[in-house]
Amino acid sequence: MRLIDESAIKNIAIGASFFGAGGGGNPYYGMLQAVAAVRQYGPVKLLDVSEIDPAAWYSPVAGMGAPAVGLEKFARGDEYQRVFDAVAQYTGHHFAGTFPIEAGGGNSLVPLTLAATMNLPLVDADSMGRAFPELQMSTLALAGVTTTPMAITDVQGNTSIINTVTGKWAERLARAETVEMGGTATVSLYACTGAQLRDHGVTGIVTACELVGSRIRDAHRDPEAALTEILDITHGYELFTGKIIDVERRTEKGFNVGEIKIDGYDDYEGHKLSVMIQNENLIAIRDGQPITMTPDLIEILDAETLEPVTTEVIKYGKRVRVLGTPADAKWRTPAGIACVGPRYFHFDYDYVPLEQLIKEAK
Amino acid sequence: MRLIDESAIKNIAIGASFFGAGGGGNPYYGMLQAVAAVRQYGPVKLLDVSEIDPAAWYSPVAGMGAPAVGLEKFARGDEYQRVFDAVAQYTGHHFAGTFPIEAGGGNSLVPLTLAATMNLPLVDADSMGRAFPELQMSTLALAGVTTTPMAITDVQGNTSIINTVTGKWAERLARAETVEMGGTATVSLYACTGAQLRDHGVTGIVTACELVGSRIRDAHRDPEAALTEILDITHGYELFTGKIIDVERRTEKGFNVGEIKIDGYDDYEGHKLSVMIQNENLIAIRDGQPITMTPDLIEILDAETLEPVTTEVIKYGKRVRVLGTPADAKWRTPAGIACVGPRYFHFDYDYVPLEQLIKEAK
Repeated sequence: MRLIDESAIKNIAIGASFFGAGGGGNPYYGMLQAVAAVRQYGPVKLLDVSEIDPAAWYSPVAGMGAPAVGLEKFARGDEYQRVFDAVAQYTGHHFAGTFPIEAGGGNSLVPLTLAATMNLPLVDADSMGRAFPELQMSTLALAGVTTTPMAITDVQGNTSIINTVTGKWAERLARAETVEMGGTATVSLYACTGAQLRDHGVTGIVTACELVGSRIRDAHRDPEAALTEILDITHGYELFTGKIIDVERRTEKGFNVGEIKIDGYDDYEGHKLSVMIQNENLIAIRDGQPITMTPDLIEILDAETLEPVTTEVIKYGKRVRVLGTPADAKWRTPAGIACVGPRYFHFDYDYVPLEQLIKEAK
Repeated sequence: MRLIDESAIKNIAIGASFFGAGGGGNPYYGMLQAVAAVRQYGPVKLLDVSEIDPAAWYSPVAGMGAPAVGLEKFARGDEYQRVFDAVAQYTGHHFAGTFPIEAGGGNSLVPLTLAATMNLPLVDADSMGRAFPELQMSTLALAGVTTTPMAITDVQGNTSIINTVTGKWAERLARAETVEMGGTATVSLYACTGAQLRDHGVTGIVTACELVGSRIRDAHRDPEAALTEILDITHGYELFTGKIIDVERRTEKGFNVGEIKIDGYDDYEGHKLSVMIQNENLIAIRDGQPITMTPDLIEILDAETLEPVTTEVIKYGKRVRVLGTPADAKWRTPAGIACVGPRYFHFDYDYVPLEQLIKEAK
């Protein structure tokens, strides 16, 4: 157990935005909210999965919807407790703690705010080890934890309990409600036992976010050294350095979708990188060849500050460094690839691990 | 109390289609289902509101979605009990009986099937006295009964409990789910006490449907006499006799919307009638002047058989008689007109009662 205070929250916000791989929402607003909650209610206890009760129940809380909408339409704050309580009341479970559904700027901080407000511990595990755009995309789901019963609520105070035959149906019905609710909503889903979270979640992700975040916050002292440390922590690779020359981005069926085009400079002079997005960065194509594919992570960082740039705020002219990070091993299985691999997102590529693509490109 | 048997069901099916005013779904499939249920489980007890326990709880079950989709995509049958039980479980109420949410071919029969299957009584009241396209349109709602908690389910077995701040929000969220579920769904909403149903429902509607239905089934013997009797029972008016020369109908956001154009013959030779629809017949315009406006009912009947023709099956070339029926007095209030009057449906008319329009047209 250790305490998450205001400084740790700022690190987690930045690091979660890194692991969000372009998605999970912008960290700034969620960070302000979590900091305010910790100031009011005190620091949050972070528990390692070895410290939680395997038989107790845990439930996450997250934002759902297009991050671009979330930039202008904030949660009121009472939504988090409302969905959390709705699932508890419906299932009859007492929840011993909460955890992030995904690593992502906004969604890593939502359960922190809830944990502070309700004086609950936060578990150091999530169900993706990154961010993904759809509800059924969860390592817990790969292991048979059901997506529903889930709760969804909005700023007006409307709340639904959704019970579906598959996780994909939960995604479809909750997405339809999210769009109707104005493009963003708050959800709670994948309630599970401590044992399930320990065995099938991506463990240590909050700590990993904090670690990467602290390096990024210090990066101004020596960006190159910080980058090397980050690649070391994440077992990642540098993919590209360049300037954004085009951003094609639209909000479609509740998602941000589009393509980001980057022209290289420095070591990448004369080269081109294109990143395909659906809330998250999904495929990076360098000079016509894929160099990183979902579920492996593609991070676009500000070239000066190394701050991660999420898909809803990325702009023409920005100078960026692009990294690739191997996904958690749970995603690199046939079931994982079927769930979140390139073909699921309608890209005509078979998944090849990042390490192999890098080797082939050299 | 009296028993509803197979013959009564056939009358109710036809009569409900009359009061459905073009909507509420086609009666044929629902009739087959109710007849099968009564054959298997025995006749259904129909209770007058004077016979029900004012303190007990009652809950309706209905189909939701575009009737045109319902023609090809049937309920499996287990949906009715699933939504009914979902509301009971969520609210903790024991329901002493069920009732139709609206009078309409399909939706008058759904609670009959449920009542037979679960051996529950059916109450002789609904919450519209006709059919309307949206969930917040209910005389119970006008009196303060809340639309939610409601349950919605589909043929796949997905079920949601929806809790909203207004009836209109229930409509929006349930409609979004209905569209995602494939255009049709089964819902349960407006759970209320016996006293609420007695005081704020439209009472005697099942009996009225049965009465009108029996006259229509006998109409082949003497159509003119049957028509006179029907107008007498419903306090209605003959609006038009003619041939359908154009049907503009599309499925939009889960509704059937469009316009039906009719050229007159016999007494109406040289005259024209146009009926604007949104699942139901909403406004009838005769020679450019409104002759009946929602919430008053517009019924389009087959000229030979007097069988009501619902909006999803009406066809070019059909010879029809068009009637108008005054709505229940609960709808003819300022709150009722705000909820279901012409302006709600974006028609640029102030509501004028049918009787007055008829008088002015003479």
